[in-house]
Amino acid sequence: MDAISVIRTKRDRGALSPEQIDWVIDAYTRGEVADEQMSALAMAILLNGMDRTEIARWTAAMIASGERMDFSSLSRPTADKHSTGGVGDKITLPLAPLVAACGAAVPQLSGRGLGHTGGTLDKLESIPGWRALLSNEEMLRVLDTTGAVICAAGDGLAPADKKLYALRDVTGTVEAIPLIASSIMSKKIAEGTGSLVLDVKVGSGAFMKNIEDARELASTMVGLGTDHGVRTVALLTDMSTPLGLTAGNALEVRESVEVLAGGGPADVVELTLALAREMLDAAGVRDADPAKALADGSAMDVWRRMIAAQGGDPDAALPVARERHVITAPASGVLTRLDAYQVGVAAWRLGAGRARKEDPVQAGAGVELHAKPGDEVTAGAPLMTLHTDTPEKFDYALRSLEGSFGIAAPGAAHEATPVVLERIA
Amino acid sequence: MDAISVIRTKRDRGALSPEQIDWVIDAYTRGEVADEQMSALAMAILLNGMDRTEIARWTAAMIASGERMDFSSLSRPTADKHSTGGVGDKITLPLAPLVAACGAAVPQLSGRGLGHTGGTLDKLESIPGWRALLSNEEMLRVLDTTGAVICAAGDGLAPADKKLYALRDVTGTVEAIPLIASSIMSKKIAEGTGSLVLDVKVGSGAFMKNIEDARELASTMVGLGTDHGVRTVALLTDMSTPLGLTAGNALEVRESVEVLAGGGPADVVELTLALAREMLDAAGVRDADPAKALADGSAMDVWRRMIAAQGGDPDAALPVARERHVITAPASGVLTRLDAYQVGVAAWRLGAGRARKEDPVQAGAGVELHAKPGDEVTAGAPLMTLHTDTPEKFDYALRSLEGSFGIAAPGAAHEATPVVLERIA
Repeated sequence: MDAISVIRTKRDRGALSPEQIDWVIDAYTRGEVADEQMSALAMAILLNGMDRTEIARWTAAMIASGERMDFSSLSRPTADKHSTGGVGDKITLPLAPLVAACGAAVPQLSGRGLGHTGGTLDKLESIPGWRALLSNEEMLRVLDTTGAVICAAGDGLAPADKKLYALRDVTGTVEAIPLIASSIMSKKIAEGTGSLVLDVKVGSGAFMKNIEDARELASTMVGLGTDHGVRTVALLTDMSTPLGLTAGNALEVRESVEVLAGGGPADVVELTLALAREMLDAAGVRDADPAKALADGSAMDVWRRMIAAQGGDPDAALPVARERHVITAPASGVLTRLDAYQVGVAAWRLGAGRARKEDPVQAGAGVELHAKPGDEVTAGAPLMTLHTDTPEKFDYALRSLEGSFGIAAPGAAHEATPVVLERIA
Repeated sequence: MDAISVIRTKRDRGALSPEQIDWVIDAYTRGEVADEQMSALAMAILLNGMDRTEIARWTAAMIASGERMDFSSLSRPTADKHSTGGVGDKITLPLAPLVAACGAAVPQLSGRGLGHTGGTLDKLESIPGWRALLSNEEMLRVLDTTGAVICAAGDGLAPADKKLYALRDVTGTVEAIPLIASSIMSKKIAEGTGSLVLDVKVGSGAFMKNIEDARELASTMVGLGTDHGVRTVALLTDMSTPLGLTAGNALEVRESVEVLAGGGPADVVELTLALAREMLDAAGVRDADPAKALADGSAMDVWRRMIAAQGGDPDAALPVARERHVITAPASGVLTRLDAYQVGVAAWRLGAGRARKEDPVQAGAGVELHAKPGDEVTAGAPLMTLHTDTPEKFDYALRSLEGSFGIAAPGAAHEATPVVLERIA
């Protein structure tokens, strides 16, 4: 077995054998297959595809490259959620404590943001004192005592994926559905959850720009989860416009707390409840009422205990950016669109995201929206507020917002896009 | 400009712009574009192709990555030859002195063998004392005083190609016609020859297994040469069976000297003369008679002076392998085929070639043929003799020869394949 013959098989449009897949993943993890060999293989996979059998084996080999977690000692069933990433996607923050309040255990191993999509850990780190890095024992203890934990994944889970993900990021091979699906699912299966709900985003602010690709990715992942004994469901959800009214770290924490307090933007509440119901159903928890858990403060109670258990102060003031810039509506009328990708790039440029994984993020930076598509706006009234500690970035951020919204005549009809587009199980 | 956007352009089936090509070749040579990025790009080029304009620019950028040689101080016109590589292809050895004897200057910057095809420098190094490494000044002096020189290319010529070639070799991206054509032509154009004859091999022992691919490669290279002001002609020649009766280093030197002495196998003589006529014609040398230069010993005189000028003793005994193994004909009849690739692999395994570029080669190892397709053979009489210093390799070499030949009933008709299949100018 050697790297060149494996590369040639896929290059020449063949199917990789189980032995080839097992060998190449293991040898890459050990450093025997070099980065330049794996990137050539990744490009061949991107251009020539993998069939269902190959993707399943590829995923299994990535799981086998590291350790697997075990939640069987918990008294509650486990439920996990994964989002493919979007702009203003803070859903994990209210969702994890909400589902825990309804009776499931929610172990959320999360990531940091790269590019225009934000990362859950970056958001939570804007809470003074909060720690993302927990040992396996700490993680289990937080999960056991509060019902939910959101923390960084340990290095031991699917190390092959960790290495391959970093490689794909610099070699133009991110956008391959077989590689995206196996990357997500190898981590989630290694994490040992019993059930999983996938939030597959569709639209300008998402990886998947069209519904056909999103559908293919979702059904590939549902198949992989099911094959590995994880009850898996996917929702395709809209990412043509940002979720909620904020994109940025502390800004999104504030909005999440509003949701947990029974308020918050309608779309964030709607998606949080839809995902909570799917997670509880997949975990086998019956007779729970997530809407009630938001209304009666029980989800907020779990949030406060969860944040405190990881060193955070749930009552501390959140960081605020030093400078603001307001964009006003140029005309009165109905806001017809507000582009998720452009808002995401603006937030990123303002300091909410990072260009390289070692870069720091600004806790207070981001974009605050004062209207959503379908809302009436008034000429001269604020449409968006940009927040940053580095005001020299305003121009750069403003350029990314050129043409990002549309305003129709007052009273014009607007057909709202639903938040949840499809369900794939 | 960044590597990922260049990779994405080709990945998404776009044409690379001149600026993208210039940048990526330069940045790769400087180490700013990483190996894993270039290998992903090479795979995308292999699978999605490059058009004529892209290949021309890619070649020009590789030439511009290093120095160019200048032979304008020579009194004679320069003629160069390049073979895409085959089994038993020792043609450069008699050809360079022959063409020099006819009045052209022949600067042959050659390579070493890798895989089943032999390298000209490895062959010549079996002559005691002969040195492949010359300074530019030494090279010009040998060329000026003897009319021909065969030596290693300096590190300064097309360094981008050198780096890319080594990368392609380990990433399954060798077999891309745009990359093969630009690799060969960038080196040859940087070498500064005025005319160039390409020997594009076709058949099992060659890179190009079928005539369509060989034709595409040949016409791509002829176009590149012509665009750069080098008079370029290509011959497509047969490589379904080995050239001559030997494959191995000292074995091939011995056969080359036989040709220079007016003897040697018919196919080697025929191809040597055909290429000599093309080179002389391309160099504008009229009224020369290569057949006469072989018959009257003038080509041999140049050979002896050329070898001596590089420290070699043309009268020294050539190395002989310590062990031999004879394969006899299993039946009497007409030899119908003898597979070039299988013989090449056997010679390689016996020690004539190398698996990695830092491996040494055995001077005496290789395969000697006692019959060629079309010859009558007798049951029990020798068909091939294997030579090696490491007899434990016999079994391994014999396995590669299983099914390598066919014998038809005595007197059966045999249609001979011509040596020269096509001419592309």
